[in-house]
Amino acid sequence: MADKKKRRRAASSSDSESDPLHFKSKLKPDSSILQTLTALKSASASSSSSRPASLSSLNLPTAFREVSDLPLSSVQSTIESLALSLAHSILAGHGFSFSVPSRASANQLYVPELDRIVLKDKSSSRPFASVASVRKTTITARILQLIHQLSLKNIHVTKRDLFYTDVKLFQDQSQSDSILDDVSCILGCTRSSLNVVASEKGVVVGRLIFSDNGDMIDCTKMGMGGKAIPPNIDRVADMQSDALFILLVEKDAAYMRLAEDRFYNRFPCIIVTAKGQPDVATRLFLRKMKNELKLPVLALVDSDPYGLKILSVYGCGSKNMSYDSANLTTPDIKWLGVRPSDLDKYKIPEQCRLPMTETDIKTGKDLLEEDFVKKNPGWVEELNLMVKSKQKAEIQALSSFGFQYLTEVYLPLKLQQKDWL
Amino acid sequence: MADKKKRRRAASSSDSESDPLHFKSKLKPDSSILQTLTALKSASASSSSSRPASLSSLNLPTAFREVSDLPLSSVQSTIESLALSLAHSILAGHGFSFSVPSRASANQLYVPELDRIVLKDKSSSRPFASVASVRKTTITARILQLIHQLSLKNIHVTKRDLFYTDVKLFQDQSQSDSILDDVSCILGCTRSSLNVVASEKGVVVGRLIFSDNGDMIDCTKMGMGGKAIPPNIDRVADMQSDALFILLVEKDAAYMRLAEDRFYNRFPCIIVTAKGQPDVATRLFLRKMKNELKLPVLALVDSDPYGLKILSVYGCGSKNMSYDSANLTTPDIKWLGVRPSDLDKYKIPEQCRLPMTETDIKTGKDLLEEDFVKKNPGWVEELNLMVKSKQKAEIQALSSFGFQYLTEVYLPLKLQQKDWL
Repeated sequence: MADKKKRRRAASSSDSESDPLHFKSKLKPDSSILQTLTALKSASASSSSSRPASLSSLNLPTAFREVSDLPLSSVQSTIESLALSLAHSILAGHGFSFSVPSRASANQLYVPELDRIVLKDKSSSRPFASVASVRKTTITARILQLIHQLSLKNIHVTKRDLFYTDVKLFQDQSQSDSILDDVSCILGCTRSSLNVVASEKGVVVGRLIFSDNGDMIDCTKMGMGGKAIPPNIDRVADMQSDALFILLVEKDAAYMRLAEDRFYNRFPCIIVTAKGQPDVATRLFLRKMKNELKLPVLALVDSDPYGLKILSVYGCGSKNMSYDSANLTTPDIKWLGVRPSDLDKYKIPEQCRLPMTETDIKTGKDLLEEDFVKKNPGWVEELNLMVKSKQKAEIQALSSFGFQYLTEVYLPLKLQQKDWL
Repeated sequence: MADKKKRRRAASSSDSESDPLHFKSKLKPDSSILQTLTALKSASASSSSSRPASLSSLNLPTAFREVSDLPLSSVQSTIESLALSLAHSILAGHGFSFSVPSRASANQLYVPELDRIVLKDKSSSRPFASVASVRKTTITARILQLIHQLSLKNIHVTKRDLFYTDVKLFQDQSQSDSILDDVSCILGCTRSSLNVVASEKGVVVGRLIFSDNGDMIDCTKMGMGGKAIPPNIDRVADMQSDALFILLVEKDAAYMRLAEDRFYNRFPCIIVTAKGQPDVATRLFLRKMKNELKLPVLALVDSDPYGLKILSVYGCGSKNMSYDSANLTTPDIKWLGVRPSDLDKYKIPEQCRLPMTETDIKTGKDLLEEDFVKKNPGWVEELNLMVKSKQKAEIQALSSFGFQYLTEVYLPLKLQQKDWL
């Protein structure tokens, strides 16, 4: 019995210690990995130029509603014309109402050609002279007035600031937030165009130079902390880079490892993270990088349903903001890791895998029904494996082979083997 | 009735619109406010040098336990000696046990002379040969081994990384986290000395230059996003500044307003926020700024019990990490605003004040019993007013007078009138 235990322990220790070394020995010289990455970059640059540019170019039978970035002066004049038409309607004795695009899920559609969720063109009327809608109509008018003020002053505020300008009317922030989204749809412009910004969570480090509100930022010289991603994308400009790819990281622990080891010096890349759930500022920043620099985006997320969900929010948008999916999404993100098949392939020890909860499994099964997963057979296979094995693992699980296994073995080998989906 | 309503509305609109202008007219030229700030800075620099430097210099009757920053080589040799003594104990047939300082609240004390919470010197034994403590003893030994690895490699990891190196043993992260704090106490060094870093949340902008991992960072050239505060304070060095004060801000909405308006150019200052609850990295960074630059710290927090609580964590430490209060706390932070008395003084409209919940009121009353509040009569008065009026307000409530009221009227007037406690 004691012997058996000893033998089992010896076997498991060879599993967890000699095998990682085995992977390290598979690594080719960096120059060869760099060739792979250069090829990926040129492929990505040419494929991104051949993509259909917009919804309208697809000639789909349904009509859609999309918003775009508008200069402040247009936002201002659109609000003024709208106010004028309301005044005319009131003077003519008809009272007034807003025509508000529906943002309900029945009005949403995943367009595979674009690989993102878009909003169909159903609208509803929001009359002032109706008990059911008088509050919403009043709030809509007030938000329009506040946005008009912002456009005159050209300053940025948060949703929270907006809420506080009239707490008695808005009652709670979810009401002013939701009508702010309505106002975006009514005016046909992005929320950034309204100068209402999200709180910033993301950080970026690596081979990127850009200007933030006029200041030039060199992200190779931002130490380990990195540069906080600016909340207002309209003041970000002049992006330059000699990177071969963008590494999108789900969590800040992995980000820190990569930043401290200056991974971007060994494999020229830009490393970006929103520290969990993607926020609007980071999504806008990622999209801008991808568009301007024509770089492939590789994602490093946890091997659980939420990792894939986060990838999908960057890739094809959240349902909540589908009216603005054109500006918020970054197409063609590759799933680099940690993928369910990696758990066995890289021999992640049993104790670092976690059993999936009932909710996890349900989320995984729900994802299998989503169009953006279905269109990628590789993703379906991985997700099926996850749901079947009922095991999940975080990026940090790789730390069981040593704290620097991520940067020294796992990622280089993944890149060398073009092991992305 | 209709007339009465109209009159009331007119009165309330004059309350909320003419009065803020009234405050603006009270503002003196900036040069006069700058004189006030220069005086504050010199007073702060001289007072900080006259403070008692340490617990030992106080000659208190009780014995205390404090940790200090140790170089990696000391951490390494301390662990090695400890391991050697355990081995001796085992070979002598005594088994082994750790002597672990107690971090329970009964072992904590607020020292008014130092204005922070410290840990008394009670310890308990953690023997391996006891069913009650065998798990904790094993985890302690494993954490010591992992820290030793980190010190050999000189790399930084997060608590999460640490947890993942042995999930089967640690079971959940709260267990490895808690024993990591024990290990700090056992070795007598700060958690940063162990090379285990907290995830970074804070940002800094304004008149500060420092080096992060060897890169020189100029925080006046960080746009609106600011510089992310590095997770590892030991790689922060060479702080330089021509600021007159540090403005510590609770929330990022206010931070963004200040950064966009480049408040630090009008009144030379360094603006820092942890975006809510203070994290270890921001607390270490604030303390380092205060110590090296000898600048006064003014705090801008919400007018609610949590605002004051956050101020107190920066000021005298959290109970959880009292063993490290010497390194984590910044003494003598002034409460600039938003204070309960400001609500009436600045005529914050009723609709922007929020009723305090039962929990809020209880938290407020509990704070009144805390030593760090009691020693400041001004704070007691403000807190009494808050609990009595049962009203709270966020910094953002000032937006009701215009989005830039905070930077253009409220803060300049506060500074001019030396209105801090």
